[in-house]
Amino acid sequence: MVDAAAVLAGDRRAIARALTLIENEAPGAEAVVGQLFPHTGRAHLVGVTGPPGTGKSSLVNELAKAYRHRERPATVAVVAVDPSSPFTGGAILGDRIRMRDLAGDPGVFIRSMASRGSLGGLAAGTADVVKVLDAAGFERILIETVGAGQSEVEIARATHTTLVVEAPGLGDDVQAIKAGLLETADILVVNKADQPGADNALRALRASLDLAHPSARRWTSDGHHGPAAAAADTGAASTAPDDAAWAVPLLATVAVQAQGIEAVVDAIERHGDHLRATGGWQRRERERLAREMERRLRDGLLAGLLRRIGPAAFAAALDRVAAREVDPATAARRLAGGA
Amino acid sequence: MVDAAAVLAGDRRAIARALTLIENEAPGAEAVVGQLFPHTGRAHLVGVTGPPGTGKSSLVNELAKAYRHRERPATVAVVAVDPSSPFTGGAILGDRIRMRDLAGDPGVFIRSMASRGSLGGLAAGTADVVKVLDAAGFERILIETVGAGQSEVEIARATHTTLVVEAPGLGDDVQAIKAGLLETADILVVNKADQPGADNALRALRASLDLAHPSARRWTSDGHHGPAAAAADTGAASTAPDDAAWAVPLLATVAVQAQGIEAVVDAIERHGDHLRATGGWQRRERERLAREMERRLRDGLLAGLLRRIGPAAFAAALDRVAAREVDPATAARRLAGGA
Repeated sequence: MVDAAAVLAGDRRAIARALTLIENEAPGAEAVVGQLFPHTGRAHLVGVTGPPGTGKSSLVNELAKAYRHRERPATVAVVAVDPSSPFTGGAILGDRIRMRDLAGDPGVFIRSMASRGSLGGLAAGTADVVKVLDAAGFERILIETVGAGQSEVEIARATHTTLVVEAPGLGDDVQAIKAGLLETADILVVNKADQPGADNALRALRASLDLAHPSARRWTSDGHHGPAAAAADTGAASTAPDDAAWAVPLLATVAVQAQGIEAVVDAIERHGDHLRATGGWQRRERERLAREMERRLRDGLLAGLLRRIGPAAFAAALDRVAAREVDPATAARRLAGGA
Repeated sequence: MVDAAAVLAGDRRAIARALTLIENEAPGAEAVVGQLFPHTGRAHLVGVTGPPGTGKSSLVNELAKAYRHRERPATVAVVAVDPSSPFTGGAILGDRIRMRDLAGDPGVFIRSMASRGSLGGLAAGTADVVKVLDAAGFERILIETVGAGQSEVEIARATHTTLVVEAPGLGDDVQAIKAGLLETADILVVNKADQPGADNALRALRASLDLAHPSARRWTSDGHHGPAAAAADTGAASTAPDDAAWAVPLLATVAVQAQGIEAVVDAIERHGDHLRATGGWQRRERERLAREMERRLRDGLLAGLLRRIGPAAFAAALDRVAAREVDPATAARRLAGGA
């Protein structure tokens, strides 16, 4: 049993229990999230993404510490989204390392989300975990992804502020990854800035930023996000004032030496203020919730259809596709139409 | 206009035109793919994934060359799935570098798939691109992802054979990534094996492989893949003979010096034979097509619902969610039920 009132009061054991329900996709999870949802919407959600090897975890740890040591400290939750599998215990190890630094502070809550082999459930689970932490009163929620794959970037983007972390000299594939990441950044950080090649990395990123059209940045003219995007579109297109007027800061840090961290915290806070002043806060909130509704609709509609037609009908259609008698698109259309 | 007969005859310009249709999600794309689909199912699909910096592109290039120089050469298509954005031209640059090595050989076809800001369309687009190349007669199709994020791994898994590439000493986050990747591998390659730390990497991976339960590997007990998974399940669970009897080979390569490449080609061929002998080929084919049908059903059902209820109904529901009057799960359930 999860006590929603205890979660709202910030009871750590109640919070942990709610998060476990969600991670296990337990039957009671949806009801708990439903009870907590009216109390969400206060936290500033910050996504942190970037290629592996850039030191995102260290940076996030330092950001959490910095928030705690400000003149007016903010409470911080960290959600580390980790696609590792359970059998090596990657997520647990990561948690332990973090714990050492931040243990015992009731104003900090840290949780790793492992995919446990259920790859696609990660975005849904993360959205619900964030709701619990928001309702529990954490003022800043840092959502960190281990990698910078497509799904990870989408998770980091479903926030108010997206922080992209780079580092000098990571190898030959990295250039390509940078390209896709740059345009999702509200704040760009070059970590490990004491290492060789840092100046070059900063120069190259500065040039790319100057070239990049801010108009190409966020959820714009994006067929992917589905047919509901048009309905959800409240003007977040290329001329949205929150995007147009925001000059993406490029910052250098050395997280393991706690260098440059305050400037990143300041940039996050300034971006939050900027969003609130321009209406961007509500716009991004609305976009995020629209994406979540679309995802839930997709899954719910498929489950409903399969219940109605039964597993045999799906298997029969699949037989014909596997025999190359019908192509998958036609088969899917027929199944949907015949329901 | 794309001439399906010309694609079937292997005409390169017709193939390129078909692929462009798909990439642009043009209206005619589905019809062309539908015409070609009956001629698919002959190619051996090989997914290549792994963290950035492991030299996957170089390895894939060398594999393609090796296939061309075998005693009995196989024709090879390479699909490089690249989530870079268009404005930096990452994909195009990559293509040019590849072209230098393999240009002019009619038995090789290379295509990069960029996401163009449409992140989620990548899996769908890749599946259709692979169909075209399969129908055009390419005998081996190497599907390489730039990163090793969640979506990229799923793309690489939707094949007959999944090759996971690692390299020594890539940084502190890499250990975590390895964990999630290991269990998806049919063949494990340590590239850059001439670099410091290679022996350690090989030893660690060998130990992990010995520990890993083969039963935990593929699409098994995986809630994610949706409600249709049960219907599609033809026995690919933990005791599937193709998985149980296959000992994942661990191979060392230095792709830039073309070292160790033949052994990888041999492993791919052996895995193909193994799948054919055990029924695993059909099983993976069926799983792949089931996933594709599910994805198409999800998208199609959502589009159909939104057409029926209209954009205003979605926007009204979103208003209530944004005002925290209803939670997203309840709102989605009501929208679906009220259609």
